[in-house]
Amino acid sequence: MGLKRIFDAQSVAVIGASRDETKRGYQALKILLDERYEGAIYPVNPKEDRLLGLTCYDNIAKIPFRVDLVLITTPARTVPGLLEECGACGVGGAVVIAGGFAEMGEEGKSRQDDMIAAAGKNGVRVVGPNTSGLISVHNNLNLVGLHNVPKGDIALLTQSGNMALHLVTEAQLKSQKGFSYYVGVGNEADIKFHEYLEYFTEDPKTKAIVLYVEGLSAGREFLEQAYKTTLVKPVVLLKSGRSATGRKSAGSHTGALAGISKVARTAFRRAGIITIEQSDELFPAVEALSTLPSIRNNKIAILADGGGHATIAADVLDEYGVEVPELCEETQAKLREILSPNATVVNPIDVAGSTDADPGIFADCARILIEDEDVGGVLLVGLFGGYGIRFASKLKFMEEDAAHRMGKLVAKTNKPIVLHSLYNFEKPHSLELMRYYGIPVYDSVDIACKCISVLSEYGQYRSEEQCNKNFVFNWGSKAVPKGKAIIEGALASGNKALLEYQAKRLLGLHGAPVPRGERLVKTADDAVNAAEKLGGPVALKIASVDILHKSDAGGVRLNVEGAAQVKDAFEEIIKGANNYDASADIAGCLISPMAEQGMELIIGTKIDDQFGPVIMFGIGGILVEVLKDVVFRVLPIARPLAWGMLEEIKAASLLNGYRGKPPVDKEAIVDLLLTVSEVVESYPEIAEMDLNPVIVRSDGISIVDARIILK
Amino acid sequence: MGLKRIFDAQSVAVIGASRDETKRGYQALKILLDERYEGAIYPVNPKEDRLLGLTCYDNIAKIPFRVDLVLITTPARTVPGLLEECGACGVGGAVVIAGGFAEMGEEGKSRQDDMIAAAGKNGVRVVGPNTSGLISVHNNLNLVGLHNVPKGDIALLTQSGNMALHLVTEAQLKSQKGFSYYVGVGNEADIKFHEYLEYFTEDPKTKAIVLYVEGLSAGREFLEQAYKTTLVKPVVLLKSGRSATGRKSAGSHTGALAGISKVARTAFRRAGIITIEQSDELFPAVEALSTLPSIRNNKIAILADGGGHATIAADVLDEYGVEVPELCEETQAKLREILSPNATVVNPIDVAGSTDADPGIFADCARILIEDEDVGGVLLVGLFGGYGIRFASKLKFMEEDAAHRMGKLVAKTNKPIVLHSLYNFEKPHSLELMRYYGIPVYDSVDIACKCISVLSEYGQYRSEEQCNKNFVFNWGSKAVPKGKAIIEGALASGNKALLEYQAKRLLGLHGAPVPRGERLVKTADDAVNAAEKLGGPVALKIASVDILHKSDAGGVRLNVEGAAQVKDAFEEIIKGANNYDASADIAGCLISPMAEQGMELIIGTKIDDQFGPVIMFGIGGILVEVLKDVVFRVLPIARPLAWGMLEEIKAASLLNGYRGKPPVDKEAIVDLLLTVSEVVESYPEIAEMDLNPVIVRSDGISIVDARIILK
Repeated sequence: MGLKRIFDAQSVAVIGASRDETKRGYQALKILLDERYEGAIYPVNPKEDRLLGLTCYDNIAKIPFRVDLVLITTPARTVPGLLEECGACGVGGAVVIAGGFAEMGEEGKSRQDDMIAAAGKNGVRVVGPNTSGLISVHNNLNLVGLHNVPKGDIALLTQSGNMALHLVTEAQLKSQKGFSYYVGVGNEADIKFHEYLEYFTEDPKTKAIVLYVEGLSAGREFLEQAYKTTLVKPVVLLKSGRSATGRKSAGSHTGALAGISKVARTAFRRAGIITIEQSDELFPAVEALSTLPSIRNNKIAILADGGGHATIAADVLDEYGVEVPELCEETQAKLREILSPNATVVNPIDVAGSTDADPGIFADCARILIEDEDVGGVLLVGLFGGYGIRFASKLKFMEEDAAHRMGKLVAKTNKPIVLHSLYNFEKPHSLELMRYYGIPVYDSVDIACKCISVLSEYGQYRSEEQCNKNFVFNWGSKAVPKGKAIIEGALASGNKALLEYQAKRLLGLHGAPVPRGERLVKTADDAVNAAEKLGGPVALKIASVDILHKSDAGGVRLNVEGAAQVKDAFEEIIKGANNYDASADIAGCLISPMAEQGMELIIGTKIDDQFGPVIMFGIGGILVEVLKDVVFRVLPIARPLAWGMLEEIKAASLLNGYRGKPPVDKEAIVDLLLTVSEVVESYPEIAEMDLNPVIVRSDGISIVDARIILK
Repeated sequence: MGLKRIFDAQSVAVIGASRDETKRGYQALKILLDERYEGAIYPVNPKEDRLLGLTCYDNIAKIPFRVDLVLITTPARTVPGLLEECGACGVGGAVVIAGGFAEMGEEGKSRQDDMIAAAGKNGVRVVGPNTSGLISVHNNLNLVGLHNVPKGDIALLTQSGNMALHLVTEAQLKSQKGFSYYVGVGNEADIKFHEYLEYFTEDPKTKAIVLYVEGLSAGREFLEQAYKTTLVKPVVLLKSGRSATGRKSAGSHTGALAGISKVARTAFRRAGIITIEQSDELFPAVEALSTLPSIRNNKIAILADGGGHATIAADVLDEYGVEVPELCEETQAKLREILSPNATVVNPIDVAGSTDADPGIFADCARILIEDEDVGGVLLVGLFGGYGIRFASKLKFMEEDAAHRMGKLVAKTNKPIVLHSLYNFEKPHSLELMRYYGIPVYDSVDIACKCISVLSEYGQYRSEEQCNKNFVFNWGSKAVPKGKAIIEGALASGNKALLEYQAKRLLGLHGAPVPRGERLVKTADDAVNAAEKLGGPVALKIASVDILHKSDAGGVRLNVEGAAQVKDAFEEIIKGANNYDASADIAGCLISPMAEQGMELIIGTKIDDQFGPVIMFGIGGILVEVLKDVVFRVLPIARPLAWGMLEEIKAASLLNGYRGKPPVDKEAIVDLLLTVSEVVESYPEIAEMDLNPVIVRSDGISIVDARIILK
């Protein structure tokens, strides 16, 4: 395992070790000593004999012991040479602090290439460059300069040092949780997000992973690894750089791609990653996921001792799509038995004073609720933890007893309780007990609700069918010889696009609903014959790799009927095309049967800069063009995901019929989406596909126009 | 001024005063004494002579001094009698704690009516019932039992005691701000939100008002008062009960009305109220608005010492619609002069280490930014306040100097600075100084961004034209005699609806674009004559107050041309109507010219349960019916607001032309919206209006069908 010598390093050399207290090379030694790193420390500096009581070496080759990891604190220009030296001495990994690499234009980029080449010679794995460093908390390997990082089971991967400081501060102040690792990934020149993720997936000291991501250099690999990781442990991610200004600020160059954030969101969800939008919610979300069971049925009971917070919680959970269902009669009756008559027992439950003399009643209510099989978890909001402070001090012992009971209830039933308390800031013992049992406590109702929502999102993901199907491409596995021939033919003749009839033929080979009897004709007579064979009115369309926008060249005639009209139409189209572009290579005209009336759909694929091939679906016309009502999925897709696309568009109900029209053939749309996925997987040469329009009716579907661009 | 004797009470009687420490009647006396209420305190209890060192009276009549305010802590059933006694003794106001009134079904409601009647006899004004009480912080009149409420200039009006506790805790822990008043409005049986609002508007001790609202019993009056208030001081509101479950929890019965939250949001914005969705943001928002100048141009500079937070802030501000524009060359040059070469100076500004040795540079940057006339305010995010803690302790003095300079900068330029600091929790002196100057400091980037956003929202509202126009109805002021005659005629004949031709005539009287030459005919011959006069194809529609859905009764024929066809159509329609409903009162047929092709719009009005008459606008077809793409405004409206409606629908760009079509006549739509507003204002008898469809073209607009329901 490549990264083990980094995270489990038995020895660390600090290159650039220094006596100057303002230098990173001093601070690094100091913190390793202060934090009592369990391995050996070797300062490297030719000008010093000893530093902070440690023997100092002239260079890495002079160290007479095995060195697992080096920390390089010297400037960028020295790094490639040093890494080559390190490799020669059998060093396993290096943390490169300096900036001045790929983030600094062309010169920096070429220096980064040199560095990777130098490290690669002997397989030295590199963290960074341009990183705040890393911490392996369990063996006190602290290369960051951040003191008192609490020990725990959350691994932290970040592209911002300040964000890491924020998370560590949150953990210290508001939680009993801590970290297993901290990695500033820096420029990801060598080791990338997905490799760290892989390491943490297998690491028994890590129960959950939190990421702050501005941009991904290997998005597809990241998704594929995350998919495997989230089957085992939760991954929570804050993706910043969502807005144009934010992307500019993040220095990402993927900003130009429209819809990137929509694709990213769907891609992350696909891989089971919990995406967070507000930085305040990041630590609470990973805290809850690392310590509590997830919610399997998206149904929550709210237990409160005042109307206000119950109402706020109900609103917020509704906005997150979590249900707060009415409780069954039996559960209501049980609650009524122990609560005063003016309590509300429907859900939210408002105890309305019933707990004033005995806050232990909260634990009784929680038990009744959680034992209801329709309740997936409990959110307790209000004053719990403050009864002993606000009313009578003996009540605090009752609260502590209730905390023990609720804590055990969670363990026993494997359903979560999340707590909001107005008295959290007073740090009462009862709330410390709740945390001891793994029940997080928040002073914010909004954040408590967010935690419920992520527990539910993860629970739902884990129970969905897609969890059993990975989405790794099996490139070319379903290609057919005739299909290969079409693509190879196009490429051989120097074309970067398939003609409409070629694209349709390729799709047809995989079972897509292309118009029957469509023919490419080269003369007016052939056109007349073809039209006769089709019978009824036909469409004629110019076929030329040089004319992508056929209408602009006058290259489309619809509803043409009878030999004379067909002949005229053919001749006019060819003439128009020649006028439009005299040098255009014209293959002829495509003669198709007229499509029946129906609903226009648009189905397309493209290669996303970060995540590779994605598929898009929408209903044609203003819905796509004005309202951007489209949905994306990372390819390949399986049936349930294709169904999900139909349900996710805002105008989904149109597919079920509108103003008395019958529903369209949704099964046929799903089949077509799966066929498109299969075609992309079969021919890696495909860069883009555009089926526009596809016409769907209540009894079938038909691709009216198709375009495929090759890489 | 009715409420002055309550909030400025010189004396308070406590009815139900008690020796029992668990009773509210004991706690109330105790806290008045503890908090050193500045007026006289008169306990009332026939069984006691003295309580807590105070003379106790048998009843209110026995008190030989003037009593301004009574606190009634006895059960609900005693309240009406007590209020009558109080009134007889010249008491000015009463705070009624007990529940058991309108919130508890029919019996409670009738008790509440009795109570109001009793109080009304001698003009005793009542706070509550079912309230946590009130605090008038400046004279230590604390009737709530909440200790240590910080003194300040924010007035708090709430429907939840827990929510108030949350706000007071926030103020204590995270701010130097405090409260001028606290009122639990309870059931609003007598004094309602808007009356408190009016009092606080004129109160010099109050600079900003914060409200937690579950439901409004007099929404229209509230809006009209809020409109006046927000011209003088900011009002921040959290409306809970937005979701169905939330509304149920809030016990509001307005839940049945679809779109209520959309109406509420637009209504509040109309009145200049800043609406908050997350409870965590409520106190920070009112804190910022009470202490900082607002932002006039919606343009912000982000100043950061690390990429992560700058990126997050840019993302969040973008989501709030606040611009983070590129800075002009001159400002960039000035920044470059004082920052290191690898700093980013475009916006967000990342100092990239330039402040490590001198955090005073933040103040220099802030000055350069804020002096740029294109910058409306500055958001400083990152480590400020922590340089002295993290790096070298002497840096803290530089931070303090920077705080003084930034504080004065805000006062001098009247532009805000908002601060986020990762070191807020360490409470460094520099951050205390920032707060002293009225610059709030947050540990959350999200909340700091929210504060920027509310400062900008308020600044924009104040600068918009609508601020100069109140929206109080001038009922009937623009009615015309013929219009009154139409409505009175309908009401006289017992009809609750106007016939289509009557509705159109009424609208036409106010200049609305109704079809020219339209006629109601009673015989087939008249129909033929009318059609001939119109010329071209016509539409025939059944006219019957008993047939609202004309098509269902076969009562619509379109594109009818020629005498024979018109005659047939008339006869079939009448026959069909008789078949549909033999008892229907049939006035005849409406003959109209066929409307030209164009875009279908829907314009309607209704009376919202909480806010009174509102107008709705949308583009017909799937946009309204499937995507609910409609926009509401509280009536009456002025021209800029009508334009805003056109811009606010999601498909707004359709109005500008689509697929080569010319733009529609937006001016004509705006004129029609204003006419509808005028008609509603003219005839208070109108309950609902439904213009559907209205057809708009590039050169005009026409109401094709209209329906008006009377109250």
